Amino acid sequence: MEQVFTSQLKDYIGKEVTLKGWVANLRSSGKIYFLEFRDGAGFTQVVVNQKEVEESSWQAVQQVTIESSIIAEGVVSKHPKKEEYELQTKILTLVGKAEEYPIGKKEHGPDFLLDNRHLWLRSPKQWAIQRVRNTIINATYEFLNSQGFIKFDSPILTPTSCEGTTTLFEIDYFGEPAYLTQSGQLYLEAAIASLGRVFDFGPVFRAEKSKTRRHLTEFWMMDAEAAFVEHEENLKIQEELISFIVARTLEINKKELEILERDTKPLENVKPPFYRITHAEAVKKLREQGSDIGEMDDLGADDETVLTQMYDKPIFVEKYPAAVKAFYMKRDPSDPTRVLNADLLAHEGYGEIIGGSQREDNYNELLARMKEHKLPIEPFQWYLDTRKFGSVPHSGFGYGLERIVAWICGLKHIRESIPFPRLINRLRP
Amino acid sequence: MEQVFTSQLKDYIGKEVTLKGWVANLRSSGKIYFLEFRDGAGFTQVVVNQKEVEESSWQAVQQVTIESSIIAEGVVSKHPKKEEYELQTKILTLVGKAEEYPIGKKEHGPDFLLDNRHLWLRSPKQWAIQRVRNTIINATYEFLNSQGFIKFDSPILTPTSCEGTTTLFEIDYFGEPAYLTQSGQLYLEAAIASLGRVFDFGPVFRAEKSKTRRHLTEFWMMDAEAAFVEHEENLKIQEELISFIVARTLEINKKELEILERDTKPLENVKPPFYRITHAEAVKKLREQGSDIGEMDDLGADDETVLTQMYDKPIFVEKYPAAVKAFYMKRDPSDPTRVLNADLLAHEGYGEIIGGSQREDNYNELLARMKEHKLPIEPFQWYLDTRKFGSVPHSGFGYGLERIVAWICGLKHIRESIPFPRLINRLRP
Repeated sequence: MEQVFTSQLKDYIGKEVTLKGWVANLRSSGKIYFLEFRDGAGFTQVVVNQKEVEESSWQAVQQVTIESSIIAEGVVSKHPKKEEYELQTKILTLVGKAEEYPIGKKEHGPDFLLDNRHLWLRSPKQWAIQRVRNTIINATYEFLNSQGFIKFDSPILTPTSCEGTTTLFEIDYFGEPAYLTQSGQLYLEAAIASLGRVFDFGPVFRAEKSKTRRHLTEFWMMDAEAAFVEHEENLKIQEELISFIVARTLEINKKELEILERDTKPLENVKPPFYRITHAEAVKKLREQGSDIGEMDDLGADDETVLTQMYDKPIFVEKYPAAVKAFYMKRDPSDPTRVLNADLLAHEGYGEIIGGSQREDNYNELLARMKEHKLPIEPFQWYLDTRKFGSVPHSGFGYGLERIVAWICGLKHIRESIPFPRLINRLRP
Repeated sequence: MEQVFTSQLKDYIGKEVTLKGWVANLRSSGKIYFLEFRDGAGFTQVVVNQKEVEESSWQAVQQVTIESSIIAEGVVSKHPKKEEYELQTKILTLVGKAEEYPIGKKEHGPDFLLDNRHLWLRSPKQWAIQRVRNTIINATYEFLNSQGFIKFDSPILTPTSCEGTTTLFEIDYFGEPAYLTQSGQLYLEAAIASLGRVFDFGPVFRAEKSKTRRHLTEFWMMDAEAAFVEHEENLKIQEELISFIVARTLEINKKELEILERDTKPLENVKPPFYRITHAEAVKKLREQGSDIGEMDDLGADDETVLTQMYDKPIFVEKYPAAVKAFYMKRDPSDPTRVLNADLLAHEGYGEIIGGSQREDNYNELLARMKEHKLPIEPFQWYLDTRKFGSVPHSGFGYGLERIVAWICGLKHIRESIPFPRLINRLRP
């Protein structure tokens, strides 16, 4: 019999197939066993009727426990009304009998679940999150490639840091200090003079001692950088990317979003153009809501939550005060106290998912900014070189994968959005 | 005028376009300038004829230096015989004038080039390598997705190591030691019970003090793992993946392989099935060639080179002695001194590009192996759990991205295959 995945069953109605996977749950009415079966690709019901199987299969099914692995051979049938399938088993083989499974008998606290992350991943919700994550990753590659971006893997081990060493993990690199990267952006800026448009997509690290539901010490970041792209076009690329990702998820992961009980209405609304307000307008709105935010203050997480609840799709907040943003952002020619940047905030209270800006492309301006920020010049001379040899206007942006996963999946805590989360107090398993 | 990339010029013959990019080289015959133009997507010749431009453009072109950035507006024409295009410029704008460019005037040593890696990346050969690398990455995603594999990001920061700590980079994780991963395989083995088929693709680290042309301290690794896949099917997936990658490169990167002066004949031959020989047969062949390799010895890099020069496409060497391979590999039932593994060696002397095996799926066998290898049990209990709760036969394999890039591009040294190589004596830029 042909071995198929549960995701293929609709093409095998009335046919004999072999399924290989795990029993998520089971019940029996004495003469018939109903197994909730899963194989990674999806789920189905496996029915074992004593009257229709040999004695060996009947013996086997009686041994089956929750999370045991099995091979089931039989005929596929479809639910008369729903898009659900069932296997009428002819031969059942028990592959690996599971010991008593520790998860699922009762409510568990987060520590227990994280200690057992290697098993917790099997639960339908965790399965769904990882599948959505996969879609987001693939959609990102697909969209960026279609726009001429080339994957360019920035280094993880770096000799210097952009913004102080307090949140950096340090390693001993054959006798000299090295740091785990927090962003590949500066390397991407060098790469555009070779490849035009580039992106990296890899792990970054923050040794932050904050314990919040939005922070991980290790997470995945996608940074994109494009030559000859200025502020306005930068926002256009971002809103098209996010819209593409959401559309792909809605198309591919219906079942997963259902398992996650995600209201898809707000996602269906994610189409260009997104809202655009300036930082000054954002501050005004927040103050009208009673916030005491200062005119030139950065937006905090709470401010973002309040703001994004006012909108029905993602919003760009543009032109932050230069003083609260990174040294490499280009000043707004119409107001040099502000920069040509934008943070993209997801609606429904989720907050920042992308940060981006046009970059300062003038050598002397950039050097002055670095001195203002008290950065050492020598270790960044290679970066300054990019403004010496054919500098061009350019822009870029970066997204935190886990924030996008959490938003699209509707998760309260970011820790479920990555396979094995690393938190201040969590390095295991 | 419409802004286009050089890769689109074939669709714009006779039309007016705007090109934005850099001048790789230039020559002048007094009244005409010929600029070797590149924009990341490709190359073209930009012609500026004094008779056909305004004075401002003529002034601008006289300022152009090697690596200056320009915007050229004009009409596209095609070479009468070759697939080459040219721009007859109407307006030329100098965007960023480059200082005297340090690369290219003479032969440079590797240290100089690596010190200037941020600029060296602009050379045609380095551009071509990164483009091929991008194709290999994309082809890997495309193939694995088509086979039902889900991307699953294994953690980089890990509390323990599989095989001793001598080649691990250690960090201080809020007071406890953590290590940079060398492989995500064990995590993937846990994930298959949720997702069926998974792969990761991220940076891994080896604090190896060896200085060879095949070693980096930081490199990118793709690991795949599949439930219910046994040894034979494991090899089949690998040869199909590699064949797919090579076919995609030949299809997409003709120009790049030409720049690299890569003989594509040996690549055109990369189609399933690959050769398969056992380790015992490999040893016999090597001894016939005069090697003093022992019957139960691992193959060294030199052995691999000799061996692969005997074949016209990649070869699997199967069933190595258990003693020279990792603890998790499943023993060959027909000879328990050997394991169900295979290394895939690229022909033309390149050597190992993939290592893979069926995994030990029996709890007691695996525990015994771990004890034989003197591994601590407690930190690996989560891994052992995967054999307690519905264990299944499963297999996996991993490739080192830079080795594949070096092989397909025909590079002698692996350091050119990654954007910013990290070597024992190299952490900059």
